[in-house]
Amino acid sequence: MSPNYPYNCWYVGATSDEIGSQPLGRRLLGRPVVLYRAPSGEVVAMEDRCAHRAYPLSAGRLDGDRIVCGYHGIAYDTQGQCVHVPSQENVPVGARVRTYPVIERAPFVWIWLGQPGAAALRTPPATPWLVEPGWASQGEMLHVEANYLLLHEHYLDLTNVYAMHAANMPPGIDRLPSLDEVEVSEMSVSYTRALPPAPLADWEAEATGLPHGPEYHRREQGFFVSPALHVQKWAIDTDAGAFEQLRIHGFTPESPTMTHVFLRIAHNYQTDRALVSAHLRHFFLDMTRRDAALLEVVQRQLAEDGEPRRGINVKADRAGLRARRVAQAMVAEESGRPALRAVATAGG
Amino acid sequence: MSPNYPYNCWYVGATSDEIGSQPLGRRLLGRPVVLYRAPSGEVVAMEDRCAHRAYPLSAGRLDGDRIVCGYHGIAYDTQGQCVHVPSQENVPVGARVRTYPVIERAPFVWIWLGQPGAAALRTPPATPWLVEPGWASQGEMLHVEANYLLLHEHYLDLTNVYAMHAANMPPGIDRLPSLDEVEVSEMSVSYTRALPPAPLADWEAEATGLPHGPEYHRREQGFFVSPALHVQKWAIDTDAGAFEQLRIHGFTPESPTMTHVFLRIAHNYQTDRALVSAHLRHFFLDMTRRDAALLEVVQRQLAEDGEPRRGINVKADRAGLRARRVAQAMVAEESGRPALRAVATAGG
Amino acid sequence: MSPNYPYNCWYVGATSDEIGSQPLGRRLLGRPVVLYRAPSGEVVAMEDRCAHRAYPLSAGRLDGDRIVCGYHGIAYDTQGQCVHVPSQENVPVGARVRTYPVIERAPFVWIWLGQPGAAALRTPPATPWLVEPGWASQGEMLHVEANYLLLHEHYLDLTNVYAMHAANMPPGIDRLPSLDEVEVSEMSVSYTRALPPAPLADWEAEATGLPHGPEYHRREQGFFVSPALHVQKWAIDTDAGAFEQLRIHGFTPESPTMTHVFLRIAHNYQTDRALVSAHLRHFFLDMTRRDAALLEVVQRQLAEDGEPRRGINVKADRAGLRARRVAQAMVAEESGRPALRAVATAGG
Repeated sequence: MSPNYPYNCWYVGATSDEIGSQPLGRRLLGRPVVLYRAPSGEVVAMEDRCAHRAYPLSAGRLDGDRIVCGYHGIAYDTQGQCVHVPSQENVPVGARVRTYPVIERAPFVWIWLGQPGAAALRTPPATPWLVEPGWASQGEMLHVEANYLLLHEHYLDLTNVYAMHAANMPPGIDRLPSLDEVEVSEMSVSYTRALPPAPLADWEAEATGLPHGPEYHRREQGFFVSPALHVQKWAIDTDAGAFEQLRIHGFTPESPTMTHVFLRIAHNYQTDRALVSAHLRHFFLDMTRRDAALLEVVQRQLAEDGEPRRGINVKADRAGLRARRVAQAMVAEESGRPALRAVATAGG
Repeated sequence: MSPNYPYNCWYVGATSDEIGSQPLGRRLLGRPVVLYRAPSGEVVAMEDRCAHRAYPLSAGRLDGDRIVCGYHGIAYDTQGQCVHVPSQENVPVGARVRTYPVIERAPFVWIWLGQPGAAALRTPPATPWLVEPGWASQGEMLHVEANYLLLHEHYLDLTNVYAMHAANMPPGIDRLPSLDEVEVSEMSVSYTRALPPAPLADWEAEATGLPHGPEYHRREQGFFVSPALHVQKWAIDTDAGAFEQLRIHGFTPESPTMTHVFLRIAHNYQTDRALVSAHLRHFFLDMTRRDAALLEVVQRQLAEDGEPRRGINVKADRAGLRARRVAQAMVAEESGRPALRAVATAGG
Repeated sequence: MSPNYPYNCWYVGATSDEIGSQPLGRRLLGRPVVLYRAPSGEVVAMEDRCAHRAYPLSAGRLDGDRIVCGYHGIAYDTQGQCVHVPSQENVPVGARVRTYPVIERAPFVWIWLGQPGAAALRTPPATPWLVEPGWASQGEMLHVEANYLLLHEHYLDLTNVYAMHAANMPPGIDRLPSLDEVEVSEMSVSYTRALPPAPLADWEAEATGLPHGPEYHRREQGFFVSPALHVQKWAIDTDAGAFEQLRIHGFTPESPTMTHVFLRIAHNYQTDRALVSAHLRHFFLDMTRRDAALLEVVQRQLAEDGEPRRGINVKADRAGLRARRVAQAMVAEESGRPALRAVATAGG
C-alpha cells in the first residue's frame, strides 16, 4: 500500500533519553534516519545512509560533532556536509546527506521529514502535561505492526473497552454514552463525553486514593491533535477538583504497516508518589499491549484482502472518521491530488 | 498464481469433532471462515470478519446462537445478520456478514463457498465407508504447503511408491502394472489396476491377520470423486471376500499453495479391533507425511520458476491429467473463460 | 532486480571435495543445478529438476553413472538423457534435462551456465597459486546475502580496512596510498599500489617469521580476473624475496542478492608448516566474515530503496567502477542491449 501519512507534520522521532553518545538508527515515515547528540547538546537528525556506498551511518561512530561511516571512514558534520574522506585529500563535490529539522521538547524529540522550507511554518504541538508542574508522567515505547490510522481510530472510539477491557470500567455503567460533541479543525479532531455518576473502579480507587463507595461524574475526552499525536483524557470530577489521567500517544509511522508508539501516562494528583505513577503506567501499558495485539490482527486481515474493502460504520466512529479525513486531506494536499472521501477500510 | 480450484463444489471445511463451543477460524479457498455449533447442534459458517472493522469473529465468543466480535462487541445471528451494536440502540442498515451453506455428515462438515444459489443443485459426495456398518475408520488432519492438484495427481499415480515407499509393496512385484481402465465423467475420474498374485507385505499380514505365505490377487483403485475428494482403495482378494483398506482424502485448498488434508483411513475387516485400526492409521499417516514433504519440495521448486514450465508426461499420468482437466474445466466455467487444455506443470 | 551477472562466463560451482557419492544441489545464477561424480571420476552437472514433475534430482540417488529421481524413479544418464521410466517400457520422446559443461581444476569445479556453444571458446581462469609447488592454500565457503558486485567492489577498494580492520595494518601507516595504476582489458581489471616502508603488523610477523622491527616495503594488488574470480595479493618484499599471501575469491551469484563465496588463502612461504597456513586461514576468514556482514547490511539498505540511487564516488573507487563496467558490458552484450554507463549504486 502507498503511504497514507502526511510528511509535512512534526512527528516524535525519539525520546530524549534515547539519544546519547551512540548514534540511533530508526526508520521514520519509510526513511532511514540517524539521530545523535552533538557535544553542544543539540540533537542532529540526518539520512541514515552514507552518500558513498549506502552503509547506515548509525552503524558508525561519533567523533566530536561529526558522524563517521563505519565502512570507509567518511565523516559528516551536523549539517550533513561530508568533511573528510580518509583515502584522499579533498572531499568530492556534492558529497552530503540530507538533514532533518529537529526540535527537542523533552521527553520528545520532534522531527520534520517533509518539505524542508515548510518546517518553520509549523511547530510541534504543545504537551504541557509532560512538562508543567502539577503533573507527573512516564512512558514507554512500543513497536506496533499496524497502520498508524488504525491506532488513531482505536483510541478515538473507546467503546471497544466493553469488549476488551470491561473489568476496568466503573461499576454500574454497562456502556459508554454517545459523544457530546465532536470538534474538527483543519488538522485536529476532538470530542467529549460525560459519564453518568458511578462508584470507582478498583484501579481508579488505587490511583486516586479517593473513597471507593461514592458516585463520581467522569469526562472522557479524545484529541486527535495531529496525525502524529493523540491524547486521551479520563477525568474524575470531585469537589476537590478533577483527578485526571492522560494517555499521550506519539504515533510515528515506520511504514504503512508499522507504527512507533511513544506512550506517556500523565496524572495531575499525587504527583510525588512514585507508586501511583508506576501503578498507572503498568495499568495503561498493559491495556496498550492488548490494544496493539488486536490491531496487529486487524492489520494482517486487511493485508490479506486483495483490495481495500469498505466496512460499515457505527455512530461511535464519528470522531475516528473525521480524523481519517483530516489525514487524507493532508496526504492529498502533499501529493497534489484532490482529497478522497474517507472510507472506513481501516488500512486505506 | 491465481486460484486453480473451483468454488462451486462442496469441500470439507472441518471435522465434526473440531466444532464445539469455541468458534473455529480457518482459511478456505482463500477466504477467512468461522465455524461454530449453535445450541441447536446446527453448524454455522460465515465470513470470519466483522462487518465493522475487519476483526476476525473467530477471535470473539459465542453467546447462545450468536457470535460476538471481540473488538467492539458487535453480535451476529446464525444468518450473519448483525443483531446488536453495544454502543447504540439500532443496528446499522446493511450490517451483516456472508454465511456459507454447510452440511454435516460426520465425520466431515462440508461447506459451499461458491455461488449461493447453486449450493442446492449439488450435494456432497457420499462417503459410505465412514458411516456404514462393516467399516471402521479414523483420521487426522494435515496442513500441506502444496497446491491441491499436486496432491490429487500424486495419489492418482501410485507408481511413485517404488521410489518412495518400496518396502511397503508386496514381495516379488517390482512395479505396478498399467491401469486397466480410466473412467471419466463431468466431475470425476477413476481407474483400476489389477496386480499379479504375490505374498503379503508385512503391513498387510499384520493388519489382515491372513497367512503370510500364499499369493493373493490385489486391486488398486483411485477415485477423483471431485476436486474436493480423493479415494484410494487397496483390496486383497481372498476366498473369504476382499480385505479392503481405503484412504479417503478431503483436499481443501487454503490458498493456491496450501491445502488442508482431511485424511481418513477405513477398512472393512476386523472392524472391532482397535489395534488393527491404529496400525493402519499410523502406517498410512506416516506415508502421507512423507508424501506431503515431497510435494512441498515440488511446490517450492514450481514457485521459484518465473513462469509455469511444461513437464513431460508418462503413461502413468493418464488419470492425473484427466483429473487436472476436470478441475480446469470447472474453474474455466466459473470464470466464463474457455477451458485450457491441461498442462502438466503441476502448480498451474 | 534483474540479474546483473553474465551467463557466458566460467564460475566456480563447487569445490572438488564437495562432490562425492551423494548428489549436490545448488542454485547457481538463479538456476537449480545438481552436481555429482560419476564412477569414472568425471563431474556431471545438470538441471536439478526432473523433466517429469519438477522434483529436484539432488533429492534422489546415484546408480552408477545415472542419477535417479526420488519421486517416480526416473533415471538420467550423464548427458541428461532420460534412460529409464520404471512404470513403462519406453522412455518418452524428448525426456531429458539440460546439462552444463564442467571443468574440474581442483580445488575448483568450474561450470558454464551460458550459451552451450560458447563454452568451448573460453576457459576458466588459471589459479596457479592453488596448484603449483611453492604454494600452500586452504579455504572455506561462505554464503553471503549480497550482490556479487558488492563483493568485487569491496575487495577492489581496500581503503575500507582503516575503518573496519585498522588493527591489522602495519604500524605507522595511517592510510593506503593511491593506486599506482589500473589496468583494464575486455574482461579484467587490475591495480597495484606500493606502501611506504613500515614494520610488520603482528599477524605478518607471526605468519612470515620475519623479524618484527625492521621496515619493509609492501605491494598490494587486486585482480578482477573475471566476474567470477577476484584475487587480492599482499606482498612483503625482502632481500630473500617476496612473502606473498593471496586471497582468491570465487564469487558465484546464487541470485541477484545472494553470492556463494569460494574463498582460498594461499601463501608462498613456510608452505610445509600447517600452523602458518591455519593462522592465515583464520585471520583472513575472520576478516571475510566481517566484510560479509557489512555487505549484507548494505544489500538490505539497497533493497529497501524503491529505485536504485546513485552514490557519490571517490578516487579509491577507480578499480571497482571499471570492474562494474566490465560486468555490465558483458551482461548487455548477452541481452543484446547497449551497455549502460556504470553507476555507483552498488546493487544495480
